[in-house]
Order: sequence, then structure tokens, then C-alpha cells
Amino acid sequence: MMKSKTVTAAMIIIGDEILSGRTKDANLNHLAAWLGDHGIQLREVRVIPDDGDIIVRTVNELRTSHDYLFTTGGIGPTHDDITAENIARALGRPFVQHPEAYAVLKQHYGPEGLTEARLRMAMMPEGAELIDNPVSRAPGIHVENIFVLAGIPVVMQAMLKDVAKRISGGDKTLSKTIHVFHGESFFADILGEVNEAFDEVSIGSYPFYHDRAYGATFVLRSTNDGALEAAVKLLKEKITGGGHDCFDGEPSFRSDPKE
Amino acid sequence: MMKSKTVTAAMIIIGDEILSGRTKDANLNHLAAWLGDHGIQLREVRVIPDDGDIIVRTVNELRTSHDYLFTTGGIGPTHDDITAENIARALGRPFVQHPEAYAVLKQHYGPEGLTEARLRMAMMPEGAELIDNPVSRAPGIHVENIFVLAGIPVVMQAMLKDVAKRISGGDKTLSKTIHVFHGESFFADILGEVNEAFDEVSIGSYPFYHDRAYGATFVLRSTNDGALEAAVKLLKEKITGGGHDCFDGEPSFRSDPKE
Repeated sequence: MMKSKTVTAAMIIIGDEILSGRTKDANLNHLAAWLGDHGIQLREVRVIPDDGDIIVRTVNELRTSHDYLFTTGGIGPTHDDITAENIARALGRPFVQHPEAYAVLKQHYGPEGLTEARLRMAMMPEGAELIDNPVSRAPGIHVENIFVLAGIPVVMQAMLKDVAKRISGGDKTLSKTIHVFHGESFFADILGEVNEAFDEVSIGSYPFYHDRAYGATFVLRSTNDGALEAAVKLLKEKITGGGHDCFDGEPSFRSDPKE
Repeated sequence: MMKSKTVTAAMIIIGDEILSGRTKDANLNHLAAWLGDHGIQLREVRVIPDDGDIIVRTVNELRTSHDYLFTTGGIGPTHDDITAENIARALGRPFVQHPEAYAVLKQHYGPEGLTEARLRMAMMPEGAELIDNPVSRAPGIHVENIFVLAGIPVVMQAMLKDVAKRISGGDKTLSKTIHVFHGESFFADILGEVNEAFDEVSIGSYPFYHDRAYGATFVLRSTNDGALEAAVKLLKEKITGGGHDCFDGEPSFRSDPKE
């Protein structure tokens, strides 16, 4: 049997606007699903303010404890765009002008348009590589195991195309979903038993309330396909054996925005 | 002049389903705005997996460094509902049956329906108070400076009514917003100058792209109303003095879901 390989990631969302409630983050969910598709397990996310010392401390805690670290937010030309300089500080690397980024900006703005503020977008930790930004000006940054991405969702998502070439995933986590139209407490013992019986399978129970329908969705996850199928089979047998119906997949209103 | 009072909070979102990308968190934004309305600054959010040791470590890091700590997710009757027992572990408190929670469950399920799984919902850190849950069965928990809330948004939001009676906020952060229809890099120097000129005001610059309109929104925030107004006035003067138009508030498409 092949040895399984787990590859992990953490994410830092940098932004006062998220913590104040002004802006709804849309990057966490997108990155989480994208990483899963690439065989990388997102293990922790932190949302922190635009504060250099906090960025440095958080980057250093998470980059050493995960295979990859992703940040979103705080790249660009204004005074509150402080991510790049603090990534450099965290890594103990000089903060220098990147020749390629400089050339791109010079072409776009012309030599007279290259203000000090715009030149900030060419400043990177020494040795960093640019991540292509097909939407706007400020490139992303790849340095060591860190990917520094934009905060604007459309830009962040566009940058992932370039990131995909630079990462290497492990075993994909597979999942199977079933649901019931009874409260989850009816199935708590069964769920616990099946969870205990399969070391390699984790089971989550998520109650739902939708208009007057309620029930629970059970999500089984594993990197081992055989164990996953066996756990699903056992759980279904136990549910129907107890006199309840169960159904494959998510309930049909799952994508309903009202949920 | 009255001394200003800053009250801070942190939030822990407990849930494999958020980290796997299955579920979009909807609690962060709601709690962030709610705390702001109550004069409490949300300073850090962490999303962590359903793992007892990680919950204990994260709770202990954040409860001691903030005035309040909020958790969402992992309360209920199933094997993956491990928040309450790990809050007890973090605080070094016994994990005991709460008489009032027990009475509520007994009334709802009847003495025969009180399975071991359902009784889990009456287990709390010793000395905890219940947070009223008007939607479903599992109550929230208030212990020391920690509020343990449900993960399901409609339940979590309903619990905040009871939480409101138990918190005490500080100075409210006020904000003013203006926007321009030019790239933020045109205004980077001006923004930096105004930001420097007012110690008590922080300024965020948020570019937007909307169909073919683009520009930037500038958000000024302060607990000092006078300083805020003066900073807004100075920023507007500098923008119009540089030959650009600026407009109050968010751009009109701000609430458009396409943004």
C-alpha cells in the first residue's frame, strides 16, 4: 500500500475592513475549496488587522507549522498596503525593488507616472518571485512557502492560476454526504459508533433548518476511498435499521440562498 | 476630556466544514458588525478544526489577550460537538451537568427521550450560565469572558439577544466613507499625508472593479468625532485640490451582489 501524504496550508486574511464588519470576506471559502481540489488541507485561518507587528508574528507562527501559507489583502500602492514589507521582515529578508515588477509598472504608467506610491508595488522581499495578476497592477508574491495574494476576490482568484503551477498536493480528501429529515440527536449514538469504527474517516453532523423542513446532513471524509465507502454503507445500514430514511447527497435546497 | 475606553474581542470559528470549503461562514461578518454597534472592537478571528487540543490552546491564547472571546460551532448532541468540554478543559473547570439545561431537555424530550447523546447538551463547564437559544435545543454557554455560540447563523444571531445583556462596550468606532472613480494610486500620497496628520484616525483604501467602472473607496475610522470630521475635510480638500472629484458614502453599486 502506498504511504499516504498529507500536505497542509494556513491562510491569513489581512484587513481592518473584515474585522470591522464593513466587508464580507469571500476568499476563505474559495481558497479552502481550491486547496482541497489540489490535495492540500487547509488547517487554520486567521483574520488580523493592518498592523505590521501582528502580521510578522502571525506569518512566523503559521509558515513554520504548515507546508504552505497564503495571505490575502494589503498589496497595492497605498499607506495601508503593508503586507509585502512585513513578509520581508518576518523572513529577515531585505525589502527591495523587483526588476521585473519595476519594468511592468514603468511600461504601464510611463517614466513620469512612476510615483513613489506606485513604485511601492514593485517592492518585494529579496528573492521573491512575482505571481501574475491579469486583472490589475499589483502582482502577487511567492517567497519560500508563502503566497501573498490580493484581497479583492476577482483578483485573488485570477492569481490562483499562476499559484497552481507552484504547489504540490498530497492525497485528496474524498467526501460523501447523506441527509435525514430528523433531528441529529436521534442519530448521535450511531454517528459516534461509525466514527469510532473507522480511524481514517471523520464524520461531521450539520443540522439544517429550512422553512419548515429540518434535519441533518452527515458528511464523511477520508483520503481512503475504501474506508469511506465502508463507513457510508455502515452508517446507512444503522440509520435504516433504526427505522429512519436517509438520502444521498445534500438536501435539494442546499444551494438556496435562504439557507 | 473623558478618557477613551477600548474594549476588545476575539472570535474562534470551530468547524472542519469551514476549512474544507463545504460551508461558507456567515457568522464572522454578522458578529463583527454587531460588536462594532456595541462599542467592542473585534481584533482577531481564527478558524480551527474540530480538534480538542487545538481548541484548548486557541481558547487560552485569545481569552487572556482580549476582553471577550466568542466561539461559534460545535455545540449540540453529536460526537463532533466538542466545544463545551474543551472550553472546560481550557479553563481547568470540571465538565458537569447544568441543572437548568437538564430541566429544559427533560421537558422537551420527556424522561424516556433523554438519551446519553441528548444529555451531552446539558453538560457545561462548572459555573457556566446558559445563553438562551430560542430556535433549537442546545443552549449557548457564558463562562468567564467567553461566549460559546451555535454555528448555524440563524441560531447564533438569535443567541446574541441574550449576549447583549451581558457585555459592556467602550467607545464606538465611527466611520466616514468617500469614493473616487480613479485608481487608488493617484491618491496614495494624499492618503498617507492625511493618515499621518491624525493620530486618532485610521484610513483604509479599497479599490473596486464593477463592470467597466473602477475606482476606490476610502474609509476613515476613529472613536473621536471631531478628529474624524477634520480628517474627512482635509482629505476631500486634497482630492479636489488635485483636480479630482470625490463623492460621499459608498459607490451606489456597493450592495450589488456582483461586486
